[in-house]
Amino acid sequence: MLVNGQSFRSIWLDTEGVTVNIIDQTRLPHEFVVHSLATVEDAIIAITDMQVRGAPLIGATAAYGICLGLREQCTQNQLEQISRRLVSCRPTAINLQWAVERLNTLLDKHSPKDWLELAYKEAAFLCEEDCEVNEAIGDHGAAIIARLWEEKQQKGRVDILTHCNAGWLATVDWGTALAPVYKAAQAGIPVHVWVDETRPRNQGAHLTAWELKAAGIDHHLVVDNAGGHLMQNGMVDLCIVGTDRTAANGDVCNKIGTYLKALAAADNTIPFYVALPGSTIDWSTGNGVKNIPIEERDAEEVLFVQGRSATTGIIDRVEIAQQGTRAYNPAFDVTPAHLVTGLITERGVAEATREGLLSLYPEKK
Amino acid sequence: MLVNGQSFRSIWLDTEGVTVNIIDQTRLPHEFVVHSLATVEDAIIAITDMQVRGAPLIGATAAYGICLGLREQCTQNQLEQISRRLVSCRPTAINLQWAVERLNTLLDKHSPKDWLELAYKEAAFLCEEDCEVNEAIGDHGAAIIARLWEEKQQKGRVDILTHCNAGWLATVDWGTALAPVYKAAQAGIPVHVWVDETRPRNQGAHLTAWELKAAGIDHHLVVDNAGGHLMQNGMVDLCIVGTDRTAANGDVCNKIGTYLKALAAADNTIPFYVALPGSTIDWSTGNGVKNIPIEERDAEEVLFVQGRSATTGIIDRVEIAQQGTRAYNPAFDVTPAHLVTGLITERGVAEATREGLLSLYPEKK
Repeated sequence: MLVNGQSFRSIWLDTEGVTVNIIDQTRLPHEFVVHSLATVEDAIIAITDMQVRGAPLIGATAAYGICLGLREQCTQNQLEQISRRLVSCRPTAINLQWAVERLNTLLDKHSPKDWLELAYKEAAFLCEEDCEVNEAIGDHGAAIIARLWEEKQQKGRVDILTHCNAGWLATVDWGTALAPVYKAAQAGIPVHVWVDETRPRNQGAHLTAWELKAAGIDHHLVVDNAGGHLMQNGMVDLCIVGTDRTAANGDVCNKIGTYLKALAAADNTIPFYVALPGSTIDWSTGNGVKNIPIEERDAEEVLFVQGRSATTGIIDRVEIAQQGTRAYNPAFDVTPAHLVTGLITERGVAEATREGLLSLYPEKK
Repeated sequence: MLVNGQSFRSIWLDTEGVTVNIIDQTRLPHEFVVHSLATVEDAIIAITDMQVRGAPLIGATAAYGICLGLREQCTQNQLEQISRRLVSCRPTAINLQWAVERLNTLLDKHSPKDWLELAYKEAAFLCEEDCEVNEAIGDHGAAIIARLWEEKQQKGRVDILTHCNAGWLATVDWGTALAPVYKAAQAGIPVHVWVDETRPRNQGAHLTAWELKAAGIDHHLVVDNAGGHLMQNGMVDLCIVGTDRTAANGDVCNKIGTYLKALAAADNTIPFYVALPGSTIDWSTGNGVKNIPIEERDAEEVLFVQGRSATTGIIDRVEIAQQGTRAYNPAFDVTPAHLVTGLITERGVAEATREGLLSLYPEKK
């Protein structure tokens, strides 16, 4: 995607093919800063501190993290150790585990002397694949938007509500939930996005609004509280969100607050779609509501809000509650499958059921 | 209620019985500042700028606003003009209109020479009545909490989720939604409150958490997105919120985001109560979802967050989105009556239906 006229991905290898560049997403929207990751430690910090975030991008970063770790020491012991450390950076997003396992499975079949080259190749391949997968999600999702546009007799605009950031910044390129929006806009459909700010980390305000502005997509920022009112008043045609892990029964784990929007969509008969690459499906978890582990993050994320100071113009954090206030900060919630209209994958749109998913991924039977 | 060991109401006449003192609620929780309102203009600014907020407190401030305006000029023309101006300060809360009409109805029956004394008396009476009404709401609501405590066989604690601030700061004293919490705590029931931060203005973080801390009530601050997850995971026994206007059919207009919590409560079979004085019922509005006007406030409230700077320690605002981002800011939403378990009034608990309300307020038949 374009940033100030220059084409960017969210992660890319430097020209020498060794270190890995990322956009520090904790500094957006006020500063555009690129970091170079040179060690597995750098990759771990980037994931843990959420310089990179979004399930697919975390997976891609972990894949390159393996490469960087093998550069230091190309042994079985090192591979095991860095794999364990990378997987435990964040507990909820399944792609982290998926990417690390994928590299391990490949390397297992070869001698350690070939690992480094193979790992870099596979990480690059995984990134390319992510772009293709997301573009396919975009096409399938854009078809849904096009149908709604026809239903509206091509009058006004198509209003789409999204939560958090599942745009190109959450993936290598294109995004998951936003890929259909970009594709629909390219097809000439007038789309407008209601961007949930997505407390506590405000990825909607910091990232989604920034992405959409850069892409020239019409949008308004709203507080997370507003979506129900918008839906109740006919101001939303469609919800599309991403997911950090989809259970085999179609339950969807995504950024905290997603469940509330799904409830409002159901109450107002508004389609609620989840966009995801197949890598986000956790085939081993049969019941998402009961069994997906929910990351609890630092209370400080609730107690402090980051932004540009109206007084000094510098990036600052303000404490919103009285000092000493305790906060509780679960980072994700699970939307039960019955609230999900459909799952938009790279292979098409599935019902949010085991049968629906298996119809697109029969190899998992 | 106590603040640093000193007993306070949210509004009180100074010792000379002329000017009116309020706590500037835009400065909490970091600063405790008392303002003296000397003119009707002061009262209008206090309501418009939300130095005072909360339906009952807005009503009380408007009543004193009439007094201050009549001090300047005690004529029919002045009364009409200041009444109109006060009522138009905020469109949603019905108590504003209710308080102004109440004083007008009284003054209409008397000669202007007696108006000033009568208005001050009536405003003081209205404030006393508000305290009594809220204390009664507290008793009726505490009985619900006591029943839940028995159902839990007096084990653990009773977890109550609330949205926005409907505590003593939103009324003259006691509060509406929090009165039952204070009463239950006084009765020795271990209560714990999940405090929604309540974006965009963060009345939960700024006011409710502050109030509860001062009162020694156990609580955690959560983002508005968290409530669904908490309810889905058995961490909430009961929701209680306030209301700015209740339609005659039991639809409840309250701070934006209330509707989402009511949906989550219904989805998880958790009782969802609304606490309100009879003055908040708009008997002339038969359908709240369709007919209650929703105030749209400045987009800046969404784009900037206020708090204490982590860098300078002073109160500051930080801009959370890229400069030039557009935001939409509806301040309230309407929860359909069918999602409301019961309405806790000063006369007891009613079903959220016209019949339920009329059973408590038969004089409105």
